[in-house]
Amino acid sequence: MSTTSQSIRNRAFRLRQRPVGEPGPEDLELVEEDVRPVADGEVLVRTLYLSLDPTNRLWMSDMRQYSPPVELGAVMRGIGVGEVLESRNDDISVGDIVFGYTDWQEYCVAGAEAGFSVLPNPLPAPLTAFLGALGHTGLTAYVGVEMADLKPGETLVVSAACGAVGSIVGQIAKARGARVVGIVGGAEKARHLVEDFGFDACIDRLDPDWRESFDAATPDGVDVNFENVGGAIMDHVFMRLNLNARVILCGMISQYDAAGSNSDWQGQINVGQILMQRATMRGFIVSDHVDQFAAGVGYLAGLLAEGRLKYDETIVEGFDQAPTALRKLFTGDKTGKLLIHVADPS
Amino acid sequence: MSTTSQSIRNRAFRLRQRPVGEPGPEDLELVEEDVRPVADGEVLVRTLYLSLDPTNRLWMSDMRQYSPPVELGAVMRGIGVGEVLESRNDDISVGDIVFGYTDWQEYCVAGAEAGFSVLPNPLPAPLTAFLGALGHTGLTAYVGVEMADLKPGETLVVSAACGAVGSIVGQIAKARGARVVGIVGGAEKARHLVEDFGFDACIDRLDPDWRESFDAATPDGVDVNFENVGGAIMDHVFMRLNLNARVILCGMISQYDAAGSNSDWQGQINVGQILMQRATMRGFIVSDHVDQFAAGVGYLAGLLAEGRLKYDETIVEGFDQAPTALRKLFTGDKTGKLLIHVADPS
Repeated sequence: MSTTSQSIRNRAFRLRQRPVGEPGPEDLELVEEDVRPVADGEVLVRTLYLSLDPTNRLWMSDMRQYSPPVELGAVMRGIGVGEVLESRNDDISVGDIVFGYTDWQEYCVAGAEAGFSVLPNPLPAPLTAFLGALGHTGLTAYVGVEMADLKPGETLVVSAACGAVGSIVGQIAKARGARVVGIVGGAEKARHLVEDFGFDACIDRLDPDWRESFDAATPDGVDVNFENVGGAIMDHVFMRLNLNARVILCGMISQYDAAGSNSDWQGQINVGQILMQRATMRGFIVSDHVDQFAAGVGYLAGLLAEGRLKYDETIVEGFDQAPTALRKLFTGDKTGKLLIHVADPS
Repeated sequence: MSTTSQSIRNRAFRLRQRPVGEPGPEDLELVEEDVRPVADGEVLVRTLYLSLDPTNRLWMSDMRQYSPPVELGAVMRGIGVGEVLESRNDDISVGDIVFGYTDWQEYCVAGAEAGFSVLPNPLPAPLTAFLGALGHTGLTAYVGVEMADLKPGETLVVSAACGAVGSIVGQIAKARGARVVGIVGGAEKARHLVEDFGFDACIDRLDPDWRESFDAATPDGVDVNFENVGGAIMDHVFMRLNLNARVILCGMISQYDAAGSNSDWQGQINVGQILMQRATMRGFIVSDHVDQFAAGVGYLAGLLAEGRLKYDETIVEGFDQAPTALRKLFTGDKTGKLLIHVADPS
């Protein structure tokens, strides 16, 4: 049943240049190359789904960030799930479905650096959920809400609320008894989150009067700002912060396109409110919090089983679509988790 | 020995208009008026020294801040020390020297709202120290450094380092075994802090190459940024933040003149580094931390007694100079604590 790596041709996206502004296909080169032999400790994995995340854009740039940028000419870094075709690793077997850094390629030969973990067999949820609600996406939401020390009755605001992380943040916060106000780009997304996902209110930032609507939707101010966007949206939310508010800085997607260099990032002109409201702003990266993953997956799986956690997926067909699909993260032309379907399990 | 309030004419600065840009004498009106009778629970205090603080500028504006703005026509809010001339309060006696909200006037009649506390008799340090190193200024430094959880060997950076708060922050941090780098406006101030106050390095931000000098002075990055200035200085410091850095937001004096409205505040373009470095930025106002005051004054008095805490004062003579002297906080044309000498104790 095993395949030998030597017989396989791989397709991979290698970083051709660092994007200026919106990333696009011109920044990546689709190359076809032989899969290299599997060494001791390594596995050969066939990518099934690729997760597209805002952090992909960061990794393409050389701005000062939380992990080394992808080097020019290297295969684009990415998280995915895949099927093990060959294994020289004692902890991973042929046929296993693994989660980890498959990178942007159809076949991946890797050892410990890929951080592969084997998913349960049989899968207790659809495979794609392990890149979403039960994967790094859901855990990001979980860890951030934990960090916020959210109390029942408090108001939590989440931006990019219809996104993969934001939609889960809002539902966790609802489950914990908070008032939840989302900010999204589009009236239909706003309606969806209120009617289908149970948000208390959701503001369409494309509406010229969105600031007034936001103020009206936060009559008691904002205790927790779960920030995914940055820029003008964060700026306005800051003016509603309550005393001792917590700002959980998870992402600043409005800023990632701004620059090759750091100095072009746009301002947070109301950051002074952190001082005035004696607020705390804390940045986090989910991978620092591995100690919370087991509890987090348990909690999320529980909510899912109880029907209290819903999620959307936008699945784009075909590996070669990855560079074009990445743009959807920045244009908002997708709902929930953005995935590339690369192949089906055997 | 007591004076009756009825016989005294008071001079007071009342807020005429909210400053646009740099505050000045045109924003305040010097009025002469009878001192009102002392009611039950109140005292009559003669102001001896008035403390000029950056927060005075905030209080003159109506931006969203940590306490209500001074109302137009009201006596300008301010902290001072004064001598009690008359008392109808059981806890305060005639002849006591008190610290509290004397406001900008030569005589103050007030009750609990002034928050007067009686200083020890005899005074264990010069009277002016109770507005500086042993007063709200020193406590601001103490509380902020406590909040930073500073560890020996870490690097602390403090802006406005030659100011009343900054100079004490640096010395507390040195006493705790940290590497201390100051940022000041002027080469003489930089020299002074290194040679006389024991800072490890101090950067003159007026030097065109200050960014390069700063980078060279922080070879191991920045673990704690004690921020008093905001704007471009904070922005650059952010690019040196280490993983899990703490930003203690004490003040943003570069920003206070910017605006009548909040939206004119200048940007913090590198705030994304809070995310990348998983840093924490926390704003604080010293008056929230009354529970630490006793420990703080004890600690500061101890350092002072051991000769490990020095302080500078700039004392401007004459009550009527207060509005003009206030500008020195923003031009940097002073060293250490800025005070107005109003009168001598009887």
